[in-house]
Amino acid sequence: MLNPMVAALKQAEKAAHIEEVPVGAVIIYNQKIIAQAHNLVCQSHDPTAHAEILALREASKQLKTPYLDGCDLYVTLEPCAMCAAAISWARIKRLYFGAYDPKGGAVEHNAKIFDYSFHKPEVIGGIYEKECAELIATFFKAKR
Amino acid sequence: MLNPMVAALKQAEKAAHIEEVPVGAVIIYNQKIIAQAHNLVCQSHDPTAHAEILALREASKQLKTPYLDGCDLYVTLEPCAMCAAAISWARIKRLYFGAYDPKGGAVEHNAKIFDYSFHKPEVIGGIYEKECAELIATFFKAKR
Repeated sequence: MLNPMVAALKQAEKAAHIEEVPVGAVIIYNQKIIAQAHNLVCQSHDPTAHAEILALREASKQLKTPYLDGCDLYVTLEPCAMCAAAISWARIKRLYFGAYDPKGGAVEHNAKIFDYSFHKPEVIGGIYEKECAELIATFFKAKR
Repeated sequence: MLNPMVAALKQAEKAAHIEEVPVGAVIIYNQKIIAQAHNLVCQSHDPTAHAEILALREASKQLKTPYLDGCDLYVTLEPCAMCAAAISWARIKRLYFGAYDPKGGAVEHNAKIFDYSFHKPEVIGGIYEKECAELIATFFKAKR
């Protein structure tokens, strides 16, 4: 299996190519990738279409349950409050994220969702941090 | 037009009939209901299928944009962190909710999402509070 964060980075690159914010997410179950997605807010006209939400919906569809107890989620950017809370509702076991997001992140910053949620995944931040952060920085630099 | 909170309550009742947590949501644009939905987490195998998320996705589809600037959202229960953050991403103008939720709500309680979000809707809580709370209480009482 491809390193899950490398797979998530590939998803993020796909997003950049179609002018979506370059964030990618991958869900692992039994050491296999069962869902992968990237941000698709603009093209799908869906404010909730963040990479994590789309990956969670796909994994739940695959496993035919809204509860992904045995699953790990990899995402290139620290999740926002919406995604962090969705990760908690889905009972994700471990959350691995790449770049920290002091402005919009809600895991280590701001609303710190898991301080309040019923289910708290194990959290590991800073995986492939440099690569993940660079993708985002390059994207927004080109937008200016 | 039916009172929007009454329409949201009707949605919540539909949810109760199919054994989903009875929460309903309605989105108003130009004084018309453009989206209405109820919780559908179990039946759709989707951890993100809360009433608000489904209504936001439907309204965005209708208006062909992820940004619902001129829209108001009515929901029978104080939104959780996932839904409150989604409401913020969608730039909903006014949020009306029914029952307060000290345990799972994240508007007036817990993570208080709008204290951190870029976009903060105007918030009016306690609309049809008694009716909305009773639906939830009856549902969970029957489950015990």
